[in-house]
Amino acid sequence: MTNAADRLLDAIEEKKNPSVVGLDPRVASIPDHIKEEAMNEGFEPFERIHNAMIKFNHAIIDEIVDIVPAVKPQMAFYEQYGHWGVKAMEDTITYARSQGLMVIEDVKRNDIGSTAKAYADGHIGMVERLEGTKTSSYGADMITVNPYLGIDGIKPFIDVCKEFDKGIFVLAKTSNPSSGDLQDRILENGETVYEAVAKLIDEWGEELVGSKGYSSVGAVVGATYPKVGKKLRTIMPRAIILVPGYGAQGGTADDVVPCFNDDGFGAIVNSSRGITFAYQKEPYSKDFGPEQFAEAARAAALDMKDSILDALERANKMPW
Amino acid sequence: MTNAADRLLDAIEEKKNPSVVGLDPRVASIPDHIKEEAMNEGFEPFERIHNAMIKFNHAIIDEIVDIVPAVKPQMAFYEQYGHWGVKAMEDTITYARSQGLMVIEDVKRNDIGSTAKAYADGHIGMVERLEGTKTSSYGADMITVNPYLGIDGIKPFIDVCKEFDKGIFVLAKTSNPSSGDLQDRILENGETVYEAVAKLIDEWGEELVGSKGYSSVGAVVGATYPKVGKKLRTIMPRAIILVPGYGAQGGTADDVVPCFNDDGFGAIVNSSRGITFAYQKEPYSKDFGPEQFAEAARAAALDMKDSILDALERANKMPW
Repeated sequence: MTNAADRLLDAIEEKKNPSVVGLDPRVASIPDHIKEEAMNEGFEPFERIHNAMIKFNHAIIDEIVDIVPAVKPQMAFYEQYGHWGVKAMEDTITYARSQGLMVIEDVKRNDIGSTAKAYADGHIGMVERLEGTKTSSYGADMITVNPYLGIDGIKPFIDVCKEFDKGIFVLAKTSNPSSGDLQDRILENGETVYEAVAKLIDEWGEELVGSKGYSSVGAVVGATYPKVGKKLRTIMPRAIILVPGYGAQGGTADDVVPCFNDDGFGAIVNSSRGITFAYQKEPYSKDFGPEQFAEAARAAALDMKDSILDALERANKMPW
Repeated sequence: MTNAADRLLDAIEEKKNPSVVGLDPRVASIPDHIKEEAMNEGFEPFERIHNAMIKFNHAIIDEIVDIVPAVKPQMAFYEQYGHWGVKAMEDTITYARSQGLMVIEDVKRNDIGSTAKAYADGHIGMVERLEGTKTSSYGADMITVNPYLGIDGIKPFIDVCKEFDKGIFVLAKTSNPSSGDLQDRILENGETVYEAVAKLIDEWGEELVGSKGYSSVGAVVGATYPKVGKKLRTIMPRAIILVPGYGAQGGTADDVVPCFNDDGFGAIVNSSRGITFAYQKEPYSKDFGPEQFAEAARAAALDMKDSILDALERANKMPW
């Protein structure tokens, strides 16, 4: 394998698309025909939900695999259904990777020492069987992590990234309205908490810089704060910025532009609901019924790609 | 049900013990005879690990059930083995609760809006089946959460706590050496980030104060920082403080005393490895072999209780 940042940039280059589709199989929004099929399969209630989520995700993946470089399943929507939900996450990662997509598993894990290592081993590294041999468990390419515990909470992930050529995205400035409760606080030296975190991210990523100048230690910066994106882009020149908050949360294509470097690289924009459940929303709901949910997702993913590339072009940051 | 803080304080009162045993079934430390048994049971490698973890946890729970008010399973050690590991977490929660213990599930989850709600529904609330009925999934009494995302990341948990009489512990000052990387930064108003977080925790907990004056929104403060504990005790008078870092991480009984209020309540101290793997360590390894790992855990749990109560007595904070 090669450095995870290199692999992600290669995939972006290959698809000519710096965006990622979030796979959040919110059961309430999965089309009824899928849920009805799943109701008749499996003995346990959560097994049926697992089946519905897999059917839904596979159909979406099949429709977008030639368009996007990566998918980003959000653990909360799987984990809430216990081990059956987690099994659906494992399957989703395996299937997406088998189709050639990179997988950014959105888990926002955070803990210290050997506990953080257990999370890292499980999600991006390898764990040991009772028989003594090692095996990968979730097998994601990259995961999101939370920086509140400092380097003790990040180092175990970085070590596993080094060993297995994987990557992490560390939360810097999140996309939600109250992200400022803590992240916008001003420190005595005049910088904000998110700037301090960004400096740490830049430092933490130093040893994982790939051949293209970007590090496998990336950052999360919400599309909803474009001015912050501009500032953080400068502080972390080597970080690939994963940009949530586009679409459903209110961020526009122009809002994500500051997260890109002048060469048009260095950021990847996520949309989840806005793509996967496009069939429920204008303008897609006009052309696509619930039976065409995957085709609606494809159309929305193409529109997102075009919008972002147009915005990059307007800002003279078009990479191609 | 009653308010979670009330239930936890009742359990502490009943056992006359403000400590909790962390159930971190690190496979490398589980006695060989359990792993050998488990190797012959189950088809899949992680199913065997699931079996070993359950055997280990049940034996520990059976030995400490009359001593401690609660157990704290750490999700990382389960989740790393995928859905089989998560199944072991579900079983551990169910078994511990069936024996009358409260369960603090250490997950440090953090996300926003409907995503945070999915975590909250899953771990402490209820989720909906495809059939439309609701059911609990993990069924923990309380979970740990990370505050980096601000109130948007906490409110969904608080709402579920209100509806189902559950509780959360929000990270304020963690026990690890580098917790200061971010948490000790000084803000422009002269207070530290952890103090600012503590003020938010106090505010967030206001609506969940029970009949004993404590809130179901508690805080995590490491035993390794006793001076910080003292300061935060004052800032969050109504928070029950969950104190990690005792024992294996270096915190002593005297170090945890500042986290208690003058009445001797308001804190619960955790030890994990120091209790569950006592059979591997002096002085317990002298009297207990691997076959007596659960008895060794009982002895260590009793010693921990005595040490904490002695320290509270020395500080004139003995509640009984």
